[in-house]
Amino acid sequence: MAPVTGVGEEMHALVERLYPLCRSITGDGVRATLRIVGEYIPLQVHEVPTGTPVLDWTVPEEWNIRDAYIADATGKRVVDFAASSLHVLGYSVPVSATMPLSELRRHLHTLPEHPAWVPYRTSYYRPEWGFCLSQETLDALPEGDYEVRVDSTLADGHLTYAEHVVPGQVSDEVIVSCHVCHPSLANDNLAGIAVAAFLARALAEETPYYTYRFIFAPGTIGAITWLARNAERVEKVKHGLVLACAGDPGRLTYKQSRRGDAEIDRVMRYVLAASERPHSVNEFTPYGYDERQFCSPGFDLGVGSLSRTPYAGYPEYHTSADNPDFVSPRAMADTLAVCREAFGVLDRNRRYLNLSPYGEPQLGRRGLYDSLGGRSDAKQAQLAMLWVLSLSDGEHGLLDVAERSGLPFDTVAAAAGALDTAGLIKA
Amino acid sequence: MAPVTGVGEEMHALVERLYPLCRSITGDGVRATLRIVGEYIPLQVHEVPTGTPVLDWTVPEEWNIRDAYIADATGKRVVDFAASSLHVLGYSVPVSATMPLSELRRHLHTLPEHPAWVPYRTSYYRPEWGFCLSQETLDALPEGDYEVRVDSTLADGHLTYAEHVVPGQVSDEVIVSCHVCHPSLANDNLAGIAVAAFLARALAEETPYYTYRFIFAPGTIGAITWLARNAERVEKVKHGLVLACAGDPGRLTYKQSRRGDAEIDRVMRYVLAASERPHSVNEFTPYGYDERQFCSPGFDLGVGSLSRTPYAGYPEYHTSADNPDFVSPRAMADTLAVCREAFGVLDRNRRYLNLSPYGEPQLGRRGLYDSLGGRSDAKQAQLAMLWVLSLSDGEHGLLDVAERSGLPFDTVAAAAGALDTAGLIKA
Amino acid sequence: MAPVTGVGEEMHALVERLYPLCRSITGDGVRATLRIVGEYIPLQVHEVPTGTPVLDWTVPEEWNIRDAYIADATGKRVVDFAASSLHVLGYSVPVSATMPLSELRRHLHTLPEHPAWVPYRTSYYRPEWGFCLSQETLDALPEGDYEVRVDSTLADGHLTYAEHVVPGQVSDEVIVSCHVCHPSLANDNLAGIAVAAFLARALAEETPYYTYRFIFAPGTIGAITWLARNAERVEKVKHGLVLACAGDPGRLTYKQSRRGDAEIDRVMRYVLAASERPHSVNEFTPYGYDERQFCSPGFDLGVGSLSRTPYAGYPEYHTSADNPDFVSPRAMADTLAVCREAFGVLDRNRRYLNLSPYGEPQLGRRGLYDSLGGRSDAKQAQLAMLWVLSLSDGEHGLLDVAERSGLPFDTVAAAAGALDTAGLIKA
Repeated sequence: MAPVTGVGEEMHALVERLYPLCRSITGDGVRATLRIVGEYIPLQVHEVPTGTPVLDWTVPEEWNIRDAYIADATGKRVVDFAASSLHVLGYSVPVSATMPLSELRRHLHTLPEHPAWVPYRTSYYRPEWGFCLSQETLDALPEGDYEVRVDSTLADGHLTYAEHVVPGQVSDEVIVSCHVCHPSLANDNLAGIAVAAFLARALAEETPYYTYRFIFAPGTIGAITWLARNAERVEKVKHGLVLACAGDPGRLTYKQSRRGDAEIDRVMRYVLAASERPHSVNEFTPYGYDERQFCSPGFDLGVGSLSRTPYAGYPEYHTSADNPDFVSPRAMADTLAVCREAFGVLDRNRRYLNLSPYGEPQLGRRGLYDSLGGRSDAKQAQLAMLWVLSLSDGEHGLLDVAERSGLPFDTVAAAAGALDTAGLIKA
Repeated sequence: MAPVTGVGEEMHALVERLYPLCRSITGDGVRATLRIVGEYIPLQVHEVPTGTPVLDWTVPEEWNIRDAYIADATGKRVVDFAASSLHVLGYSVPVSATMPLSELRRHLHTLPEHPAWVPYRTSYYRPEWGFCLSQETLDALPEGDYEVRVDSTLADGHLTYAEHVVPGQVSDEVIVSCHVCHPSLANDNLAGIAVAAFLARALAEETPYYTYRFIFAPGTIGAITWLARNAERVEKVKHGLVLACAGDPGRLTYKQSRRGDAEIDRVMRYVLAASERPHSVNEFTPYGYDERQFCSPGFDLGVGSLSRTPYAGYPEYHTSADNPDFVSPRAMADTLAVCREAFGVLDRNRRYLNLSPYGEPQLGRRGLYDSLGGRSDAKQAQLAMLWVLSLSDGEHGLLDVAERSGLPFDTVAAAAGALDTAGLIKA
Repeated sequence: MAPVTGVGEEMHALVERLYPLCRSITGDGVRATLRIVGEYIPLQVHEVPTGTPVLDWTVPEEWNIRDAYIADATGKRVVDFAASSLHVLGYSVPVSATMPLSELRRHLHTLPEHPAWVPYRTSYYRPEWGFCLSQETLDALPEGDYEVRVDSTLADGHLTYAEHVVPGQVSDEVIVSCHVCHPSLANDNLAGIAVAAFLARALAEETPYYTYRFIFAPGTIGAITWLARNAERVEKVKHGLVLACAGDPGRLTYKQSRRGDAEIDRVMRYVLAASERPHSVNEFTPYGYDERQFCSPGFDLGVGSLSRTPYAGYPEYHTSADNPDFVSPRAMADTLAVCREAFGVLDRNRRYLNLSPYGEPQLGRRGLYDSLGGRSDAKQAQLAMLWVLSLSDGEHGLLDVAERSGLPFDTVAAAAGALDTAGLIKA
């Protein structure tokens, strides 16, 4: 794992700022989140009205919540939304009532196997109200009447998402997507949001080859909305990465695109293996995060997903234990570093054509062959040139060269640069 | 192995009824066999005249035999066809002579390595006469003269084979073939005949997708005759299975078609693996049973072969030890069960097209998403729907879905049914 | 390894005759070498003038050397070209001077890690002069002045290479190439030259299917010159083998062509595996011997390379320790035997078409089926016929048949011959 650097601490600070907000698939929590992210990178925010048809779906009513609690007979709040956004069932309809605990119970959600933790639950598309609380809290409640109140609104409004674009040399795009719909859950997905924001910043410092588009949108309905509104742009999307669960202590996991042999798949496999980090590479499955949508068979984009411990793979998943202590600056910095390495390879993975393909060109008279020999670096540079010449037949890219030669990608890319300058190959 | 069921006992009873008959590639033994099988499933019997050109071959003369023996000087039959149809060389020409044992010996066939067993030998295409006997019997014969008599006829007649068709929803066919030319040998191939008959019965109880054609024919020349007379039908044959050696105590063996990646190959590999039975999957070889003919390069049909211990793989092979005791109700029931499982998969292995392929369709509003969650079956059903939607791109069938998802084929097929009903996919 | 035969001793004698000559990429040493090889097989010698453009290169000036030495103050030669052609830097420019050892040192090349050995060094394309000597010799030199003299000429002349052709039944060619530019180095590449010469002799004793062209040329520039002058012929080159390091005690190593699945690659892999010799099969790399040129992407010929211990893989490589003692008759005979086996397979690896592809043809009535059965050879011959018939679909050659059947290639080829004679298949 990469050493803790300042950027890790900065990302963790962003996670902590975003943590208290009550996000959902619509509403002011998302807007507040995007305002804060916008302090780091400029964002173009989109508001899509309730009722807008998006692919097979419809943009739902906007949900906002001001207050929610369960109070006992003395008026004391025994469960209070103000303490944690997890306490209210996501998309809870308003309620204001007094009822005995026996009746209230069927609106209460706990995690008996982790009695101190509060679960995260939602009911987006079926009108419900409810509270999430720890089993310990529930067990301590005496029978009797309780006042329950959810001061929420479900009404026509908008779905909100944002984009940030790092322009490249070509209009072909790489998308980086992360979901912004989860309330107070740090790894899922504030860490992903933070890594995405700092990745965008890093890319903007150079002029990349590809145009990189960062999408901050609610899960599922947000990705579907983006796809519905960007039908023509989708053809420009050549590669992509969904970032989620980017800060937990587990090892890195890359989930391949549905195609399995997309260039992003090959790049991520290569970079993870070459980095000698412990990691996993998983096959595509049609559940998880928004790779589900980008890889649906009609689009079938070359979009994979990078996580540390993947979707639902850790006990803290979707509970109050997924808090800022669960994600570390070091882990987020490591995730960020791998993204940068991968995009560094992806961005330079050109196919070249050997312009002198009959026999070897005479490198020596072009000053490309170190006649002193001996130095290991010079030797590697020469081998890399021979490999690039050998495989620059229009069918192999520099990643192929790196894989077949066993030489570092950087060495191969440098050799290609020298040969290009000498007029021996062209992209 | 499946528990013994009534059907196993029924199949064994059929083997015992057929065992005494003297079958060969032509003649009344085959006709008698088909008459008995016809009591279980209706058969269409074909008689093809001697001399009929069939592909590169010609239908041979019909062979029938009434009696055959070797008698000693006292007139006592020391080898008697009436005791076992194996005692006479198949297709023996008639003989009636007296000769010393020294001269007789070159017409006698024994198995010195199994001195108590009688071998099975034939000479279909070169005129010969001979007897098969145990080494022990031979060793006990004193020198001296013996009367030998084979009361057989080789004359113009017919080659006999039969078909049984289970009509399906489509005219595309699955053929199930078994050879009926061996005399008193239980595993090779009375067990195969019995499994085929009861498989046909089972299929007839439902309306399968494919049309299933059962072919009961003598080996090699029978399959060649069928192919010669069904030149147009062959194009309808999409899959097939040759059944042989279906009742011995060994584990199941599937021999792949010449193509190796035919759908029947994939189905059999999947079903055998999913069933967790010990089994073998073998590459195609151009020897064995009638898969040789169906898979000859001009036809190259997707026809594999299911056996227990395969062709020539057990010491009892082609000897008197391959008797009804060698095959068990349990083993035959197990072979039958695997055939039914395999055809159950084959029959439902449709390719569907996702009619809502851009993003995931909203399963919830169609009642397809169990909003309660939690139950393991419901969870599996949902995953199966997502997998079917993801892979229904016109290039993957339900077997692909089952293999890639790791979900049971039945679960996948049920999910496809639900999605089809909801109008989200079509075959 | 094959037993020592007369041919091994003959090849070793040739190595010893060639060893003292001072070869380089041009000059009289190459001519003398080709004259001696020409005593074994007739050679067509080509002389290409200095300055001739050849692909991306130009034929260099011709280098010849008469004498070279370092003499001490007493006039005693402490390093003498007459003792070993390795003592002078290849392509040394003339020099005649007296200088102190301190100044001379930067023109001296030693191998400190092997103090008794003399290294082999060249400077073809940068004008230099120098001497190679053992570290021990250098260490024994007292400081003081030394006379240095290289009596060489670098002048317009020619590059010399030779060809020997064994005509075949077809004009499609197999090339066998070996480099002739190294001075007194036995394994690299006098052993390769010797194996090539005796391989040519052996091939000439039969009429092979392919035309076999043997190329004796200096490394790199020689292969490039040949390719430049044979632009149309290259299209006839279907297969090829570069022979180098053919006599050391190590096990055989086959380096695959750039294509990796060329027929020569398959043949060599098959023959080496079938022979049960310990051996290695390596991937193509764009460095090594003249496979670099033949496999450059513009040509991309099916040319592999056969060595024992490969390029730079043994400590004696490019030193005075690579002398005739380092190569053995036994090892060279073994390399030769593998070449003959491989070309024996390559030469017979036809694709046949089954002319009776519908069902099995009746082998018996054509006398192809040994009706006696039983004998293991006859059984193998029958299996081989069935395999050839099964795979003779226009897509498989006899090597495919041998690999899939597990039968020896010779058995398969004999079966194909019998079927061809019977009119059942055609090439």
